[in-house]
Amino acid sequence: MENIIFTRNVKGVLEQALENFIPENIFILADTGSNKYCLPLVNLEKIKVENKIVIGEGETHKSPESVLYIWKILSDRGAKRNAVLVNIGGGLVTDIGGFAASCFKRGIKCINIPTTLLSQVDASVGGKTGMNFNGLKNEIGTFSMPEKVIIDVSFLKTLSPRQILSGFAEMLKHALLAGGEHFEAVFSIVPEQIEESRWIGMIEESVKVKYAVVEADPQETGIRKALNFGHTVGHAIESVAIEQGVELYHGDAVAYGMLVELYLSTEKMGFDSGLYEKISQHIRQIYPPYMPLVPEEDLYKLMLHDKKNEQKGVNFTLLRQPGEFSIDNYCSREEIMKALQVLSSQ
Amino acid sequence: MENIIFTRNVKGVLEQALENFIPENIFILADTGSNKYCLPLVNLEKIKVENKIVIGEGETHKSPESVLYIWKILSDRGAKRNAVLVNIGGGLVTDIGGFAASCFKRGIKCINIPTTLLSQVDASVGGKTGMNFNGLKNEIGTFSMPEKVIIDVSFLKTLSPRQILSGFAEMLKHALLAGGEHFEAVFSIVPEQIEESRWIGMIEESVKVKYAVVEADPQETGIRKALNFGHTVGHAIESVAIEQGVELYHGDAVAYGMLVELYLSTEKMGFDSGLYEKISQHIRQIYPPYMPLVPEEDLYKLMLHDKKNEQKGVNFTLLRQPGEFSIDNYCSREEIMKALQVLSSQ
Repeated sequence: MENIIFTRNVKGVLEQALENFIPENIFILADTGSNKYCLPLVNLEKIKVENKIVIGEGETHKSPESVLYIWKILSDRGAKRNAVLVNIGGGLVTDIGGFAASCFKRGIKCINIPTTLLSQVDASVGGKTGMNFNGLKNEIGTFSMPEKVIIDVSFLKTLSPRQILSGFAEMLKHALLAGGEHFEAVFSIVPEQIEESRWIGMIEESVKVKYAVVEADPQETGIRKALNFGHTVGHAIESVAIEQGVELYHGDAVAYGMLVELYLSTEKMGFDSGLYEKISQHIRQIYPPYMPLVPEEDLYKLMLHDKKNEQKGVNFTLLRQPGEFSIDNYCSREEIMKALQVLSSQ
Repeated sequence: MENIIFTRNVKGVLEQALENFIPENIFILADTGSNKYCLPLVNLEKIKVENKIVIGEGETHKSPESVLYIWKILSDRGAKRNAVLVNIGGGLVTDIGGFAASCFKRGIKCINIPTTLLSQVDASVGGKTGMNFNGLKNEIGTFSMPEKVIIDVSFLKTLSPRQILSGFAEMLKHALLAGGEHFEAVFSIVPEQIEESRWIGMIEESVKVKYAVVEADPQETGIRKALNFGHTVGHAIESVAIEQGVELYHGDAVAYGMLVELYLSTEKMGFDSGLYEKISQHIRQIYPPYMPLVPEEDLYKLMLHDKKNEQKGVNFTLLRQPGEFSIDNYCSREEIMKALQVLSSQ
């Protein structure tokens, strides 16, 4: 974890991290949103204006065009192999910046400054980089660890309660995977209602859960699949929303996904059904109600086509209890269709 | 080395390598040249016609457009994360196919079937992938090891003597780095004149030299730089030829580069000047005479901009004697300009 720094002084920490780089080799990437709200907070003199790269905001900009644009600027400015790209923003910026950096001259260094709760507890840690391609989320990408991740919760003030909730879903997931005290703590709160100091500690704990899993299996050949909990169904729901142009937060989709996959856990792994009811109620209380955009049959088909699935069927990470997960559980069409029913039974 | 297979039965070896893949997950990449001359030799029934990807021949096709085209077909055909891409052809195909594969769904498997001497002894082994970008060779790429490399010297029959010579330059380089018997053997022959059985053994020895260096330092943070011997000057010469549209083989450029860098080795590392003369004569005898396309000053400037160089000047790998190399030797403008004179003194 020593490359993940929790701080209230992002500017100072970044300044130190860039100490050994000459200005010609320092580049910073933001999207139009983070450029406006976050970049001013790390405005180091050492960073040249012409080495600032700004891409468009939103999923449509997580595109080959953006990556080619980043590469063009790096190349035109003569960035060397020992250059560094600082990515400041949400998951879009850290994902696409990480990807661009990992391929430029076969890999330059990256520093991630995640500015949303979602990217702080999830995207910026773990070394998954990527861009969308051919209508598919993260179809192209690499596994490439950032040199440093600087997490400053001050950025969270710039977020709406809905954006906070979006990141909180990943915290709920980490809590379910970790079990124990962290599970109890995270599931006892509603994010808007708690004081900041407790919040910070909880974010740090949450990142630790992810970090431990990723460290054990960086390339997702085994236990890293644990982090897919809630995401098999969640991704399908999210893909539909993107395709239909309906605004849906990633965390909402993951929250719905966890409802379904927890239900599958009760059916297939003996997850306690009383506890399931409790957790499920808590999630439903926090997140907006699920609005079906397509028949459940279509969600099932989308899952079958997910990159993580092989021929055998749809692969789920399920839970025996909080803190005890099981990867590579293939569920049948019937099992999945039944579980998807929980979405409509509010 | 167990993932590098030397064979006279490429079809049989490939068939076995693909044993555990279902046809839907097998893709094969060729360029227009290897599609015509090499692909028919591995025409397995298991490989679907629609999973065959053919890109254009020549450096201009080592481009983002080709990579996007490969990704599009993989994506459209629903290639899974456990898919495999078989690259059959010269360095262009193994480099660009390796790059495309390393990023598709964050990395699918690759099998390289190099069909030129150059790619057999160099490009297909070592895990450097890449494409040209913004007018620069291999500006974008990854380090990503192929699952398997299948080397069948039967393919060499399809090559012209000039193409053989192009690959032979890398063999000369490996021989200089290895020293000892391998050095004596390689420098005692003229490729066209030796019998095939000896040739095969020498290729295998040459690959072993490269493999040993790469294994010790896959990401080129240290001793892998040894493989840059002859390439600092060679790349500069090659870039000029590409820019001016002059046909020049990679091996010719490397041969010229070795002349200059061996001279630098006599000046700075005490490389024996008698031996230098002998080696230099041998190289001049085999390769066509150097034709200057730009003033030496311009070659120097190009070297300064190479991705492998930092601020300090131009970084060379030099030799104390065959088998004893030294990386990270920074040479001054004066030293380099003097050494470049050897090119014009035939």
